[in-house]
Amino acid sequence: MATINENYLKLQGSYLFQTIARKVREYESRNPDTRLIKLGIGDVTQPIAPAILKALHRAVDEMGEAQTFRGYAPDLGYEFLRNAIVENEYRSRGIDIDADEIFVSDGAKSDCSSIQEIFHQNSAVAVCDPVYPVYVDSNVMAGRAGDYDQEKKLYGNLIYMPCTEENGFVPEFPDRRPDLIYLCYPNNPTGESITRARLQEWVDYALRIGAVILYDAAYEAYIGDSSLPHSIFECDGARRCAIEFRSFSKNAGFTGLRLGFTVISKQLVLAGQSVHALWARRHGTKYNGAPYIVQRAGEAVYSSEGAGQIRQQIATYMKNASFLKTALADAGYTVYGGENAPYIWLKTPNGMSSWDFFDLLLDRIGVVGTPGSGFGPRGEGFFRLTAFGTYENSLEAIRRIRTL
Amino acid sequence: MATINENYLKLQGSYLFQTIARKVREYESRNPDTRLIKLGIGDVTQPIAPAILKALHRAVDEMGEAQTFRGYAPDLGYEFLRNAIVENEYRSRGIDIDADEIFVSDGAKSDCSSIQEIFHQNSAVAVCDPVYPVYVDSNVMAGRAGDYDQEKKLYGNLIYMPCTEENGFVPEFPDRRPDLIYLCYPNNPTGESITRARLQEWVDYALRIGAVILYDAAYEAYIGDSSLPHSIFECDGARRCAIEFRSFSKNAGFTGLRLGFTVISKQLVLAGQSVHALWARRHGTKYNGAPYIVQRAGEAVYSSEGAGQIRQQIATYMKNASFLKTALADAGYTVYGGENAPYIWLKTPNGMSSWDFFDLLLDRIGVVGTPGSGFGPRGEGFFRLTAFGTYENSLEAIRRIRTL
Repeated sequence: MATINENYLKLQGSYLFQTIARKVREYESRNPDTRLIKLGIGDVTQPIAPAILKALHRAVDEMGEAQTFRGYAPDLGYEFLRNAIVENEYRSRGIDIDADEIFVSDGAKSDCSSIQEIFHQNSAVAVCDPVYPVYVDSNVMAGRAGDYDQEKKLYGNLIYMPCTEENGFVPEFPDRRPDLIYLCYPNNPTGESITRARLQEWVDYALRIGAVILYDAAYEAYIGDSSLPHSIFECDGARRCAIEFRSFSKNAGFTGLRLGFTVISKQLVLAGQSVHALWARRHGTKYNGAPYIVQRAGEAVYSSEGAGQIRQQIATYMKNASFLKTALADAGYTVYGGENAPYIWLKTPNGMSSWDFFDLLLDRIGVVGTPGSGFGPRGEGFFRLTAFGTYENSLEAIRRIRTL
Repeated sequence: MATINENYLKLQGSYLFQTIARKVREYESRNPDTRLIKLGIGDVTQPIAPAILKALHRAVDEMGEAQTFRGYAPDLGYEFLRNAIVENEYRSRGIDIDADEIFVSDGAKSDCSSIQEIFHQNSAVAVCDPVYPVYVDSNVMAGRAGDYDQEKKLYGNLIYMPCTEENGFVPEFPDRRPDLIYLCYPNNPTGESITRARLQEWVDYALRIGAVILYDAAYEAYIGDSSLPHSIFECDGARRCAIEFRSFSKNAGFTGLRLGFTVISKQLVLAGQSVHALWARRHGTKYNGAPYIVQRAGEAVYSSEGAGQIRQQIATYMKNASFLKTALADAGYTVYGGENAPYIWLKTPNGMSSWDFFDLLLDRIGVVGTPGSGFGPRGEGFFRLTAFGTYENSLEAIRRIRTL
């Protein structure tokens, strides 16, 4: 008799952003006349840049002619895109990554959640607390997380690494030895970053204990401080212990186009087994490539015209971030992040709980953010705002918050 | 210390179509002047239809304006597409499926391979032999298949259901009781179909033993015989025991655009657990939606203009199928399929092995097909040709085969 994967029953509530979406829908049906300011989910608002649109139209035209029509894409991505990525994201920074170490996909979320499949079922998994929920939930589904402790709000088998005001939201090495370590910098949700020296320490640690670092660098384009690392492969030895996830969603507004990539060096070998080969096999068997037209759009991100337009978009979002951070600090809030990442991580006032603050902002002033506790127990007492809104909405959000 | 998922080491060789691609590359580098006729992989060759191109261009334009820009898509797909699917694929055939039972995705391959995740680790899995390799390989990766028997060329824990000339390539119920049953009709690779009455027997069987049928109907658009079922949901009770996979790849040429959908009725409940809810949770956590522009392209498939253009494309492919089948039969081959599916399944001459026949066709006459044994041991002695080439190439393939 067919039965389900019971690990799914260990998942807590529904996916954070689905819960928020439901609360927002309910609010909107009760308050049809209020204009909500949505700074919750990390979705972009600026349209696709002209150079990328042009590439999309051109590629669509190619799909309409027998001579230029493209069917199944190469499993791991078109050469033109993999080459452009290597050239612009890695070689330009002096990082030695080959085109065939790039795996093009439909986004970092898919890859971040599926990567655990190629590792051993009994892997000890370390995650930050607070953390982007996908790392945790994908391991819960796979049966690695153990049971959820309702009181501690933690899974029994995961190794949690607190990210707090005290440690600048960069974790210490955990007490228990992990096999897989998820790190994300610039960080979602805290908006804080890691220094190159500190990241090198993590790489050295991983090499020492034989762990693999799963490094989510989806927000690297928001780094303004030139001393901060854009890629974990800037660290010595990272090719032997790290996998990097990158996205076109946030740097080029592709949340609705879907494109990302994962980098696995051929030097990443575990007990004689090439992790690159495993992921290639997984990609080839369970995925069928990103759309040709979207891969051409990705290529255009690196054209000189496209790159310029995208820098402009990022600057616009970072202007929001800077404004939000300064204005909230002026209003008396304790605020983190927002300098090299599009997220503001603020402390709720008077020790209010994250969800109470969420409800207050939604119900009293029609502003939507993300409750920090949705990212883990150490997120309790914090609240995430994104800089992905328009400048006008960022202004309006602050105006309303000042009325509280 | 990080270690790999050792189930991956049980996979046999590399993915079938990657092996073929390698052999073809090697041939091409040895014979740069030969024009290969490729009737191997089931990839389409006709360009995207004009009505769909128009929808793509329109959607690209929308992505370029702030007012009409779309970021993250709804997890389960846009309403406009889910409604169009329900109306045109189901209600028009008198099948009662709701829009919120449709899960839009980037293709049937992704969903067919990931669906096993939501079922119990110990599920007994039944597959046809021969079979589309993805069903097997995804279960091998998940650790359900057991060890591979090099002599039998079978995995120890899978239940194989022979599809042979004797049973018309539609399997009998297996001796051992399965929990999950993969069926694909019109069938890849044999090109044969199942009658509605026989499919109803399978549904009744699944309901009787509490199994779930995973029904891959990616080729339903090629059905010409109006008595054959396009959907398993044409059968009574299927909503309580079946999941259906559908694709835009073959009916509308979307192999390079990537769009498909999975249908799970809310009535599919296992020991009180909604399978629909599990898949929704998986979709929301590990996937981020198909691109907006591609979903608009999917919608255009159902416009009256689009539908007409697509019927034309399918007719063209089926003209190839009919020609290939007749010509091969005339040339003395025993041939199956090709009447309600774009695949021809021919018996190799003189009991030649499938790979020997593959090498013969490639090396002697520059024609690429797919060796039947790549689909399982019961495929040995057979060979698959696709009707997705151009008519000219189909003619040329036959001309060359006649010279053997």
